[in-house]
Amino acid sequence: MDKSKIGLYYKNVMSEIIGDEHGITPNQWEDLAKQTSPIISMLNNERKEGKVPYRDLPFDTQISQAVQDLAAKYEESCENLVILGIGGSALGNIALQTALNSYMYNIDEAQREGPRLFVFDNVDPQQFGSFLDWISDKLDKTIFNVISKSGRTSETASQFMIICDMLSEILGPDTLRDHIIATTDAKQGTLRTIVDEMKLPHLEVPDGVGGRFSVLSAVGLFGAAMCGVDIDLLLEGARDMDQRVSEEDFLQNPAAINAAIQHHFYNRNKNISVMMPYSYALKDLCDWYRQIWAESLGKEVNLKGEKVYVGPTPVKALGTTDQHSQVQLYREGPNDKLFTFLQVNNFDKDVEIGPAPDCTPELGFLAGKNLSVLLNSEKMATEYALLQSQRPCMTAHFDKVDAYSVGQFIYLYEVTTSFAGALFGINTYDQPAVELGKEATFALMEKSGDCKAVEMSYDKFAQEIKEKTEIDEKYLI
Amino acid sequence: MDKSKIGLYYKNVMSEIIGDEHGITPNQWEDLAKQTSPIISMLNNERKEGKVPYRDLPFDTQISQAVQDLAAKYEESCENLVILGIGGSALGNIALQTALNSYMYNIDEAQREGPRLFVFDNVDPQQFGSFLDWISDKLDKTIFNVISKSGRTSETASQFMIICDMLSEILGPDTLRDHIIATTDAKQGTLRTIVDEMKLPHLEVPDGVGGRFSVLSAVGLFGAAMCGVDIDLLLEGARDMDQRVSEEDFLQNPAAINAAIQHHFYNRNKNISVMMPYSYALKDLCDWYRQIWAESLGKEVNLKGEKVYVGPTPVKALGTTDQHSQVQLYREGPNDKLFTFLQVNNFDKDVEIGPAPDCTPELGFLAGKNLSVLLNSEKMATEYALLQSQRPCMTAHFDKVDAYSVGQFIYLYEVTTSFAGALFGINTYDQPAVELGKEATFALMEKSGDCKAVEMSYDKFAQEIKEKTEIDEKYLI
Repeated sequence: MDKSKIGLYYKNVMSEIIGDEHGITPNQWEDLAKQTSPIISMLNNERKEGKVPYRDLPFDTQISQAVQDLAAKYEESCENLVILGIGGSALGNIALQTALNSYMYNIDEAQREGPRLFVFDNVDPQQFGSFLDWISDKLDKTIFNVISKSGRTSETASQFMIICDMLSEILGPDTLRDHIIATTDAKQGTLRTIVDEMKLPHLEVPDGVGGRFSVLSAVGLFGAAMCGVDIDLLLEGARDMDQRVSEEDFLQNPAAINAAIQHHFYNRNKNISVMMPYSYALKDLCDWYRQIWAESLGKEVNLKGEKVYVGPTPVKALGTTDQHSQVQLYREGPNDKLFTFLQVNNFDKDVEIGPAPDCTPELGFLAGKNLSVLLNSEKMATEYALLQSQRPCMTAHFDKVDAYSVGQFIYLYEVTTSFAGALFGINTYDQPAVELGKEATFALMEKSGDCKAVEMSYDKFAQEIKEKTEIDEKYLI
Repeated sequence: MDKSKIGLYYKNVMSEIIGDEHGITPNQWEDLAKQTSPIISMLNNERKEGKVPYRDLPFDTQISQAVQDLAAKYEESCENLVILGIGGSALGNIALQTALNSYMYNIDEAQREGPRLFVFDNVDPQQFGSFLDWISDKLDKTIFNVISKSGRTSETASQFMIICDMLSEILGPDTLRDHIIATTDAKQGTLRTIVDEMKLPHLEVPDGVGGRFSVLSAVGLFGAAMCGVDIDLLLEGARDMDQRVSEEDFLQNPAAINAAIQHHFYNRNKNISVMMPYSYALKDLCDWYRQIWAESLGKEVNLKGEKVYVGPTPVKALGTTDQHSQVQLYREGPNDKLFTFLQVNNFDKDVEIGPAPDCTPELGFLAGKNLSVLLNSEKMATEYALLQSQRPCMTAHFDKVDAYSVGQFIYLYEVTTSFAGALFGINTYDQPAVELGKEATFALMEKSGDCKAVEMSYDKFAQEIKEKTEIDEKYLI
C-alpha cells in the first residue's frame, strides 16, 4: 500500500472468509461488478455536465483563497471561534476539528495555535445558556460564524438573534460586524439580506451543494483554517481521491466497490451499517457519515407502482470503548450489520505502558508496549471475533490521520454516497421528508400565514399537531 | 402527572394512532399483558431470593456513606478527577456528569463546585497522550480513580500502569497512594492485590453486579459525589422507581410495559431501538442505555434445538441536532425502528431569543420566545411527522433533570432490561461473546501460556488470528 493513500480493504466480506450464507460469493461479486460498472460512466458523465457541483469544490481555488484571506484578518484578535449552524453546517466542522487538532485543544493553550473552537448545533437552553454565561465577558476576543444557506433554519436563526442581542447589549450595536461572519447564499435568502443590511463579513455556501456535501466549501473550511488546519492539503487529498473514484474499471474504483458492497448487504437483511474507528480523532467523522448516509439514502422509492422505503441505518461505534458495550450484540445478536472499521497505522503521538507492579506479574505482558500497539491489536482481535461469527467487515486504512488522508476519506464517502444512491435508484441529493417537521415547528412557534406543505393556515396546523400529540393520561405511566 | 415523577408515555405505539400494520392493536396489547404479567412475579421472586443484587444497590446506605466519606477527604485538595475505566466503569460516570452538571463545567471555574472531571474509556495514544501532556504539571492536585472489578481488563490495566509510572517519576513512588483510588472487588483479583500491596484507598465493586448494572454502586457514585451531585437524591429516585417497577399489575408497571413494547416491535421487523433525547444533558444516558441494552439482550438462544440470534440494536440520536441528519431516514427509510424520545418539561436555565433584525421580519415569530419552547416544539413537530409516517414513538417525560429524576430513569431502564431479557428468554446478565476478542487481544499482545477459550497456546492463537486477518493485497484498494 502506498504510504499516503487511504486503503479500503474488503476481503472480509467475501464468502471465502465468512461463508456462503453471509458472505459475497464469486458469482454475486461478478453480478455486483456488472450492476455497478455502468453507474461509473453515468456518474462521470453527470459530473462532466456540471450536475454534481460538490465534486468540483476541491478544484475551486477561489474558495480556499477567500477563506484564508478572511481567516488571516482574525489571526491576531480572535481567541474564541463560535460556529452557529446545524446539520451539514456543523458536522463537517466538528469532524475536521476532532480529526486534525489535539484532544485538549480547547483546554490547553499549549496545544493550540488558533482560537478555541465551539460548534453549537442545537437549541438546548441549558447547554447554550451555560456557554453564554462563560463567553459573555470574552466577547471582545470572540468571533461568531453563523452558517445557513437560507437563514430561515429555526435553530440557527434563533442562535443568531440571541448573540446579536448579547453583542449589542454588551459591546454595542455597532460592533456586530466586528464579531459576526456569515456563511450563506451569494445572492438571496434571509441571511443574505442581513449580510447586506448589516454589512457583515461573509463567505459563500455554493450553489447546488446540499449541506451534507458542503464540508469542502467555505462552510467547513473557514473554521478549519482558523484553527490551524492545512486546508490546501485537505483539498489536495480530495482531488487525489477524485481520480480514484472516477476510474471506469469497477475493481479500480474504491467508491464503486464500497457502495456495491453496502448495497448488496442492505438487500440481504443487513439494514444496519456500522462505522467503528479505532481512533478517537476519527470518531466525529462518523457523525458526518451518519448524516450523509441517512439523509441521502433514506428514501421512498416507487418500484413498479408500489411505494417502497429504503435506506440502511448508519450506526457510530468507537473502538475499543464499544467493545465493552456493543460487541456482545455485534457477535451474538442478529447478523443484520455490515461493519466498516477505520484503522490508523501510524499515530502522531504514542504512549508507552509503564512496568507492571511487582505483585501482579500477570500484567507483565503489557509493560513496555505502546498504546498504539494495544489499540490496533484490539481492532484485529475484534475483527477476528466478528469473522468467527460470520459478520462481514471492511476496513478503511489511514496510514496516518492528517489533512491529506481526511480529505481523501471525506471525498471517498461523498462519492460512495452518490454511487449508493444510484444503486438504490433514488435521488441522492434531496430530503423531502424533513420538510413536514420543519413546517410543524413553524406552526407551533406561532408563525403567521399559510403553510403550503399542508394547505392550511399555520394556526390551524398547530392545532392539528397539538391534538395529535396531546397527552392522553390513560397511556401515561 | 405527579410533577416529580418520570412519566412513560406510550399511546403513540398503538394502532389507533399509527394504524394496524405498524401499531399495536387492542388484541396484541392484551396478549402482551398476558405474556408479561407472569414475568413480573417471576422477577419479584428472583429479587426476593437475592438473585438480582443490582436491585438492592439503592437501599444500601453503607455504599453511599463510604463514598461520601472518601469524597470528603479530597474536597480541598483535588482539582482534577480522572476516572480510568471502560464499559460499565465509565458510561455511568459520564452520563451522570453530563446530566447533572453544567455544559461548561470543566472549562468555567465559576460553573463548578468540585474538581474538573475526565473519564478515559479508551487507549487511544493521541487522545490519552494529549491529556497526559496537560496534566503532567498538575499531578499534585489530581486524583485518579481506577475502576475495574478484576484489574485484568487490558485497557484499564494499561492506563493504570501509565499513570503509576508518571506519578512515580514526577512526584515520587511513595505518592501513589495519595493520588490513586481503586474501585475493585472486595476480596480478589489483580487490582485487589495491588490495593493491598500498595495500600491504596479503595471502594468496592459489589458482588454479583455486572459492570453495566453498577452505576448506582461506588463505581458511579464516587465520581458523582466528588463533582457535587446529590447522590442521596439519586438513590432516592431509584428507590421510588423500585416500587413502581415491582407493581404486579402490568398496567401499573412502567418497566413491564416498556419491555413488552420493545419486545413486540423487535419481533415485528423493527430491529432498531432509537433513543432520542431533546436535552443535551440527557444525551450520554443514551450511551449508558446502548450498553445495558446491547450487552444484555444481544444473545444467542436455543429455540427448539436451533440456534437463533436475537437482540434489538440500540441507536443514540439527539434532538434537534439529528433532525438535520437522521429524520429523513427515520420518516422515509424502512419502518424498522421504535423511537423513544426523552423530553424535559422544565429546564433549569432558559435563554430568550432576541429581536429579529428589522430587514427580516420573517424571523419575527421567533423573537422573544424561549429556547426551551423552541426545543420542545421541535420535539412535538418531529414526533408528529413520524406519526404521520406510521412510526411508533414513546416518550419518557422528565419534569426536570435532577438527581431524583435521573435516579428514576436509570433504575427504570435497568429493570426494563431485566424484563426484556426474560421476554427474549435469554440470560440478561452474562456476555459470553466478548471473551473471544479479549483473549485474542491477550494473544496479540504476546501474553504467555495457554488460552483456555480456544484450547491452544497464546502464541499459536496469535498466529491464527494474524493469518485470518492478514492483508491480502488483492482486496485492498
